Amino acid sequence: MRNVTVANPFSLQHVQITDDFWADYVHLVRHEVVPYQWQALNDLIDGVEPSHAVKNLKIAAGLEQGEYYGFVFQDSDLAKWLEAVGHLLATEADPVLEKTADELIELIAKAQQDDGYLNTYFTVKEPNKRWTNLTECHELYCAGHLIEAAVAYYQATGKRRLLDVACRLADYIDSVFGVEPGQIRGYDGHQEIELALVKLYQVTQEERYLRLSQYFLEERGQKPHFFALEYEQRQGKTHFPMFGKGVDLAYFQSHVPVREQETAEGHAVRLVYMCAGMADVAAATGDQGLVQACRTLWNNVVHKRMYITGAIGSMAQGEAFSLDYDLPGDTAYAETCASIGLIFFAQRMLQLEAKSEYADVMERALYNTVIGGMARDGRSFFYVNPLEVWPLGAHKNKNFQHVKTVRQGWFGCACCPPNIARLLASLGRYIYSYRDRTVFAHLYIGSEACFEIEGVPVSLKQQSQLPWEGDVSFEVTHGQEELAFTLALRLPDWCKDITIVAGEAPVDIQQVEADGYAYIKRKWKSGERVKLQLAMTVNRMRANPQVRYTAGKAALQRGPLVYCMEEADNGTNLHQVLLGAEGEEQVRFESGLLGGISTLSVPAMRSKGKAWGDRLYAADVKNDEEPIQATFIPYYAWANRGEGEMTVWVREN
Amino acid sequence: MRNVTVANPFSLQHVQITDDFWADYVHLVRHEVVPYQWQALNDLIDGVEPSHAVKNLKIAAGLEQGEYYGFVFQDSDLAKWLEAVGHLLATEADPVLEKTADELIELIAKAQQDDGYLNTYFTVKEPNKRWTNLTECHELYCAGHLIEAAVAYYQATGKRRLLDVACRLADYIDSVFGVEPGQIRGYDGHQEIELALVKLYQVTQEERYLRLSQYFLEERGQKPHFFALEYEQRQGKTHFPMFGKGVDLAYFQSHVPVREQETAEGHAVRLVYMCAGMADVAAATGDQGLVQACRTLWNNVVHKRMYITGAIGSMAQGEAFSLDYDLPGDTAYAETCASIGLIFFAQRMLQLEAKSEYADVMERALYNTVIGGMARDGRSFFYVNPLEVWPLGAHKNKNFQHVKTVRQGWFGCACCPPNIARLLASLGRYIYSYRDRTVFAHLYIGSEACFEIEGVPVSLKQQSQLPWEGDVSFEVTHGQEELAFTLALRLPDWCKDITIVAGEAPVDIQQVEADGYAYIKRKWKSGERVKLQLAMTVNRMRANPQVRYTAGKAALQRGPLVYCMEEADNGTNLHQVLLGAEGEEQVRFESGLLGGISTLSVPAMRSKGKAWGDRLYAADVKNDEEPIQATFIPYYAWANRGEGEMTVWVREN
Repeated sequence: MRNVTVANPFSLQHVQITDDFWADYVHLVRHEVVPYQWQALNDLIDGVEPSHAVKNLKIAAGLEQGEYYGFVFQDSDLAKWLEAVGHLLATEADPVLEKTADELIELIAKAQQDDGYLNTYFTVKEPNKRWTNLTECHELYCAGHLIEAAVAYYQATGKRRLLDVACRLADYIDSVFGVEPGQIRGYDGHQEIELALVKLYQVTQEERYLRLSQYFLEERGQKPHFFALEYEQRQGKTHFPMFGKGVDLAYFQSHVPVREQETAEGHAVRLVYMCAGMADVAAATGDQGLVQACRTLWNNVVHKRMYITGAIGSMAQGEAFSLDYDLPGDTAYAETCASIGLIFFAQRMLQLEAKSEYADVMERALYNTVIGGMARDGRSFFYVNPLEVWPLGAHKNKNFQHVKTVRQGWFGCACCPPNIARLLASLGRYIYSYRDRTVFAHLYIGSEACFEIEGVPVSLKQQSQLPWEGDVSFEVTHGQEELAFTLALRLPDWCKDITIVAGEAPVDIQQVEADGYAYIKRKWKSGERVKLQLAMTVNRMRANPQVRYTAGKAALQRGPLVYCMEEADNGTNLHQVLLGAEGEEQVRFESGLLGGISTLSVPAMRSKGKAWGDRLYAADVKNDEEPIQATFIPYYAWANRGEGEMTVWVREN
Repeated sequence: MRNVTVANPFSLQHVQITDDFWADYVHLVRHEVVPYQWQALNDLIDGVEPSHAVKNLKIAAGLEQGEYYGFVFQDSDLAKWLEAVGHLLATEADPVLEKTADELIELIAKAQQDDGYLNTYFTVKEPNKRWTNLTECHELYCAGHLIEAAVAYYQATGKRRLLDVACRLADYIDSVFGVEPGQIRGYDGHQEIELALVKLYQVTQEERYLRLSQYFLEERGQKPHFFALEYEQRQGKTHFPMFGKGVDLAYFQSHVPVREQETAEGHAVRLVYMCAGMADVAAATGDQGLVQACRTLWNNVVHKRMYITGAIGSMAQGEAFSLDYDLPGDTAYAETCASIGLIFFAQRMLQLEAKSEYADVMERALYNTVIGGMARDGRSFFYVNPLEVWPLGAHKNKNFQHVKTVRQGWFGCACCPPNIARLLASLGRYIYSYRDRTVFAHLYIGSEACFEIEGVPVSLKQQSQLPWEGDVSFEVTHGQEELAFTLALRLPDWCKDITIVAGEAPVDIQQVEADGYAYIKRKWKSGERVKLQLAMTVNRMRANPQVRYTAGKAALQRGPLVYCMEEADNGTNLHQVLLGAEGEEQVRFESGLLGGISTLSVPAMRSKGKAWGDRLYAADVKNDEEPIQATFIPYYAWANRGEGEMTVWVREN
């Protein structure tokens, strides 16, 4: 097995976010989200559904009496929280938080069974039913999150306690699953352990973990279908009776082998987690067939099944993809976790090949759906992120049962909030990558990065005015006379007017561009700077004419931010607004609004319908349109001013 | 109790449909639909779900052994079929059909219990559970349909056998339900018996039946809520576990008393059946409060919750109304039966007050949703009648699970096909009404009607070119020198250019118009004619700007027919069509197409999207529109040329 992993020197400790926009979010995660979630996991918040996750652990560890409560995958909320804590400790010491985490880790270690098994549901509630319902019961999924937490915590603190727990668990799983006699020839209903095992391999260099990940991926979808066999064996008994009878293999991406999957089917989160694992294994093994399989699924998701906000999953039933170009804004599922998973996938693809599209999508999902999934105060969250909301309709028409018009405190199925936390806490990992003396800047997020090029310590200081203005600069510092390396700057898809000045010299971008990156190859003097200026045009975006929902409509985007209209600014009946001529938008930064945002004021027409009276249909009613200025705010900032209508796509002439 | 029922001399025997357009449908019902359905009810059709309805009856009658099969309301399919047979026999003798019906009636009589009870489900399957789950089990609903069948069969044949069965059943029900001690103070989950009892009262003049109908209506929604009490009593046991726990009172229109219901809530069919019953009781009693309650619900349905095709019910879950102006075309439920019920309601309102809006809506529902619910061959049916269909999406996106893209042979829940049959078989009842020496012509359907005015026999022969051309004429024949009466001609809402010539003299319509009828008051000589010319403009219809789905879109209507585009004529991706300027539509009658229809050829633009490649979102792709001629066909004729896309509402500039 050839190891072609691209060594990435940008471990989290070495990238400090200093960005005006993002430092706020990291601060929020550190001081609000993570403490709030710890309260939630300990059932200390009034008025939100109890999590019982810590309690389950204590019962499993034999420290308390009681019944298991919560979903079968409740453990994963704790693991995701712990992973976020690991990321936070990597960039800033916090002895109190670390002590809390260490205590939790001791609890986890106590709940681990003698053989290495670790899962509170099956330990407490169905001790004889381990591995009998992999289709539904998320045992390997929970194990995957535990492994990710262990790796993050080890990388941050150097403490091996949880890593050892994770290795024992992984070793045990490795003994249970596989093609040898007596092993279960299966895999999990919810992909996650695949990417986690690669992380464990990366920190331990234990090749068995990589091979186990590879096994889970390659076994998936092979015949005879494992989930179908298991369904018979469990005689159709189910943990989720609301989902009906039988097993929908495509829901779990287990209908065909992963290399043969040409379209993104089924549960959106599972698909992108699977793809991230595939890309990880491809990077570790150099398997070009697997790389191609990743590209095929990437292209289908990104060119045919993704919302403009970087959201995925067009239908509530199954939280799933539907079909090409089916992207309804109002009934969208568009789960926060799915966009987070899409970012995981994109980041892995960037490790495989430096094409700016991966970073463009990563940025789109991050700046729109992911941070839109969290209120500005970090205490309430969206699971579902529609692009059009009509609260009256959402409350009454049951097609919109899944849509919440107001962010929720904590969900019974609380996957999204801790997922946002762990992503934002590890944001430093997504900005750069490194290969062959080339530093790739994928995201323009103010930060200070320390790394080495062929043993020479280098500091790279990025300053960025994004997402409000397009000024970005990089300053390279090192202790040498000069240092030869390349800085590859992403040319964002939203910007058609870019200037780059390296040192004092303007760069002819066309000359140095490849796959959406400008390769600035120099012998850098210490203190030398590169300036990047990105024109911040208001782009009037249209969707491919194959998309039904967007026919005759446009969306506004400025920089990476997709905009929307809200009732708070524009009143009700947003569908009555018709955008006027392009190019007359006024941009205004309003420091007092929603944490400081640039709003757009856009000339538009609005049909009031006064002449209609109580008529419902007519051929002869004059259309009494009047000119208005429509106000748009960034999509991520919606739903912070009470319940109201919202729409991203607006009709235009 | 003051009886103010308006005597309507137009019993079905006395109106023969001779219309080019409609005679075909009546012929189809007589020679295809009713025979086909008889086969279906006897489980003789391969490949369609067994009905078991006749079999259930034989088992209940003790003539066969076996288990009950089918829905709890399976009996009603037989009753609706028998009612249709009654209507058919009223206008044309058919000894073979009559013999079949008589045999069925004997079976029914045998299945009736000694105390008058009649319901095969509870007789065969749960004999001790009569009246224990009125919320769900449709006992009174089935009784209502039996009564309607009995009345129709009696009116057609003069045979009392089934009428006597119905009276015994009604007498028994009258003894079981009411406010006296020992009686059940309840009502049915599915309204139907209310309107049926008024029919029984009309043929028997037995006031108890009217009073029982009145009781069921007035008791509905009173506190304490009967369905809530019953739910407790049956300890939540349900026949429909898929509907979840609890009782949604509004689904059954039992949340508040009927006089206090201001919006159309819940299951659409139940609502309109209830309203028809309310209007019947109001007509029979002169209760103006009840008339006002009818008007309130009518206005809400027709001005805020009705599709342009006369369909109602905006959401699949609950087959129900949602909220004002929520009229999505693609996820519509729009059940055929609900439009039939709306016609029942409209016809009753016309008996109460001659306002053309009632007839306009009746016509809209009849010419569009009702006949659209049946294939041109009378052998397959739609239950759900969306205004936009994308077959690929309907198959894959589970928001459209309820939508069939191809008409079905027979449904497990087969309410719609026999409902279409009984409506079309009794179409003669909907054309005219009579009051105070005034004959109202509500529908322009070629026919010969015989009736009496103050004892004088009169024949009224109507000729009509509708729905293709707007020429209508009436010829009055009688045996007198001259006869004074008024012919009130409806001025359809779709026509702004009407001329009327009575005898030789043009009528100044403004002078004689009231509430949408032109009152032609004359001393008629025998043989005198009135000619009506209705301009057949292609109306470009828009919806009230409060409706979201139709924003920026128009629908084409010509005469009473709403039009649609189909894939068969226009290819796929119908959402890419943009209507051109108004008034350039070409109308062409195509005798060979779909039984002979007028098509519309409409200048339009179409975005092909060739320049998009695999891009999903962009600000800078040129819109490569090209001019086309879009072809529209009448909505009722869609889905007769294989599976394909269809849309009623089309974007316009």
